[in-house]
Amino acid sequence: MSVRAGIVVTGTEVLTGRIDDQNGPWLSNQLLTLGVDVAHITICGDRPADLIAQLRFLADQSVDLIVTSGGLGPTADDLTVATVAEFCTRELLLDPELEEHIAGIIRHHRPHTPDLDAGPTRIGIRKQALVPTGATSLPPTGTAPGVVIPAVAGDRPIPTIVILPGPPGELQAMWPSAITSPAVAEVLSRADDLQQETVRAYGLHEAQLAETLRRAEAEIADLDRLEITTCLRHGELDMMTRFASGDADVYRRLLDVLTEHHEHQIFSTDGSTIEDQLIDALDGRSIAAAESCTGGLIAARLTARPGSSAYVMGGVVSYSNDAKSDLIDVPAEMIATHGAVSEQVAAAMAEGARRCLEADVAVSTTGIAGPDGGTETKPVGTVCFGVAIDRRPTYTVTRHFPGDRERVRTLTTTAALHLVVAQLKRS
Amino acid sequence: MSVRAGIVVTGTEVLTGRIDDQNGPWLSNQLLTLGVDVAHITICGDRPADLIAQLRFLADQSVDLIVTSGGLGPTADDLTVATVAEFCTRELLLDPELEEHIAGIIRHHRPHTPDLDAGPTRIGIRKQALVPTGATSLPPTGTAPGVVIPAVAGDRPIPTIVILPGPPGELQAMWPSAITSPAVAEVLSRADDLQQETVRAYGLHEAQLAETLRRAEAEIADLDRLEITTCLRHGELDMMTRFASGDADVYRRLLDVLTEHHEHQIFSTDGSTIEDQLIDALDGRSIAAAESCTGGLIAARLTARPGSSAYVMGGVVSYSNDAKSDLIDVPAEMIATHGAVSEQVAAAMAEGARRCLEADVAVSTTGIAGPDGGTETKPVGTVCFGVAIDRRPTYTVTRHFPGDRERVRTLTTTAALHLVVAQLKRS
Repeated sequence: MSVRAGIVVTGTEVLTGRIDDQNGPWLSNQLLTLGVDVAHITICGDRPADLIAQLRFLADQSVDLIVTSGGLGPTADDLTVATVAEFCTRELLLDPELEEHIAGIIRHHRPHTPDLDAGPTRIGIRKQALVPTGATSLPPTGTAPGVVIPAVAGDRPIPTIVILPGPPGELQAMWPSAITSPAVAEVLSRADDLQQETVRAYGLHEAQLAETLRRAEAEIADLDRLEITTCLRHGELDMMTRFASGDADVYRRLLDVLTEHHEHQIFSTDGSTIEDQLIDALDGRSIAAAESCTGGLIAARLTARPGSSAYVMGGVVSYSNDAKSDLIDVPAEMIATHGAVSEQVAAAMAEGARRCLEADVAVSTTGIAGPDGGTETKPVGTVCFGVAIDRRPTYTVTRHFPGDRERVRTLTTTAALHLVVAQLKRS
Repeated sequence: MSVRAGIVVTGTEVLTGRIDDQNGPWLSNQLLTLGVDVAHITICGDRPADLIAQLRFLADQSVDLIVTSGGLGPTADDLTVATVAEFCTRELLLDPELEEHIAGIIRHHRPHTPDLDAGPTRIGIRKQALVPTGATSLPPTGTAPGVVIPAVAGDRPIPTIVILPGPPGELQAMWPSAITSPAVAEVLSRADDLQQETVRAYGLHEAQLAETLRRAEAEIADLDRLEITTCLRHGELDMMTRFASGDADVYRRLLDVLTEHHEHQIFSTDGSTIEDQLIDALDGRSIAAAESCTGGLIAARLTARPGSSAYVMGGVVSYSNDAKSDLIDVPAEMIATHGAVSEQVAAAMAEGARRCLEADVAVSTTGIAGPDGGTETKPVGTVCFGVAIDRRPTYTVTRHFPGDRERVRTLTTTAALHLVVAQLKRS
């Protein structure tokens, strides 16, 4: 690819693993969709020397664009703008208009701030209104403005640098103005016209996909013109392919080979998720969940989507045996005879939830998430599922999942969604 | 600090933001607890030139230790060992004993692998059994062995390099053998004897804490000997402090100042989480949840903990009004009169869940997570809570949370746990 970028994430709390960085992956994905090749992401703490070292490194790697996140706050340890300015040997100048703009934002949100016109708050505002000479400031989406510094050619050229705030919401809101600023737009105009497609599979191993890709290599000329990345996430296997628009035909042939070998595992070729497909498959019907080992994760995932109240009736987390009997009428004798982790109980849970929550469809899980509770016949990771659909016999199945408690719960949640979609599609 | 380290995370799927990296933060935190200062984390894709550039960068930054994760698989695009060996100008030698060890692992886990003794599988095993000259291999915790390469002095010195596998479970399982290997142990022996303490607060703003820290600076000499990091997470404010054991007294004085100013917001000074405190506060009593806007997140968080079945009875996700009435007996007239988002309904939900799930304690949420559903009097972010405790009047409160749907749901979940603990402690 012709245009390369580097991303610098700043913040001691990220470097020390105290909070997970969201900005690096988000920026990387945005740049990729713009046809930019992200070569490096670097993370540094709030130390100017380390930040300058990373900027120097990326500039020496001849990236065309550097995007930084974080360190734009009003306090003394927010050092990104000053440090980048030092790196570019540019002075910082106070922008009085920007200063008033920031003061106006604070006045609006915290009208009773006592030291808005003097004291620490005003000092902080003035710090945030400093812009390196020759740079463009990006309007604040919180209180911190962003900065774009155009590239400088020379013996040791400096790429275009975009400085963005750390809070993910602010950073994402500022992105449109960043990429349309003249210096960044110029870099992006040189980027390739790239397309990205995603294939999602469930029940497919990475090794099987690798084997199919090896075969495809033998069958399809120019396959190396596609950039293929695979990744396993929550039990699903995603394959992302990026290619120049002119190579769309090569991608179509790859898709044919994949479909030929893994028709039953591939559930999406248009980027749609299993949640999207669940809504399609429900086709206006309502859904409920009865959960034991997943403890609310299925309901949480179903209700994560805006507007889900239109079709999610609710759920029951029947963690104790009494809850299973009292809330959704699972007969206590059934639990005594077959055990709480049994397909009989899973069926009764799904049917009970469907009835009690007046839903058209219900899914249930009962299993052993571990670390304790496993037996010889029902080891940790054993999960029974039930899917009850109006006017259909209830479907049940038992699966075994590897890993620790968190992984078993996550894999069970994904499996439940896939089971519901599969059963709904059968009708 | 005397010993500095860099972490290199490899993998195109991480670089492109397809999966979140867990290894960088985990390794960083481990190194910090060993008294090592992590200066840089870098992320690169599966391209040898970029990996070499990052290794060169870290070596030039004079780090004492580099830890890499990922790229140890059996396939051709797993290039870390070969690339690091090239960087160190060391040859790769086949370790026949290691080859047999890996073959034995595969034989054990996949006894019917057809090409275990020849073909692609054997080629992959042989690739994984290549060890750079002078390096020590670390026994596989999956199928991939790790590698430790001792430092080399000289004009452009190369630090000690530890190569670990990408799957977080394998990497974490290999860590103990990595840090006890002679070359790494030697580096760690030079690290400072550091202590790390965490203070957690709820309902405290970053700006307020910053103000208190400024005051503390004036009051406490040597405060600059403490390294303080603050971070906001799910509505809680954490303050981590690292210091040499000799400075424990300075930290104690800081803690006094903090407690003096924020006694009611600080809920933990010993590293315990709100979940830990909930278990203490329950003191043998059982708990249940009735959730509307959190849609299962409270139950999922309560049941995330191993052994939680001993005290979590379960929960009800009463997303629809019918579910509120049918499952936990919230009177339909009450919903009609006061609205589903009201303290009256929150109280009825908590009382109903406590009764129906036979729990000693129950917590409820009903609110508007958005983006739709807000009104003038009940804007998006409005949430009513109820806490019902056996033989006590039910407590209710209304709160307003900022942000998008996901953030409102997360902040509501945290708030619910804090409210329960606060109410339990009042008794």
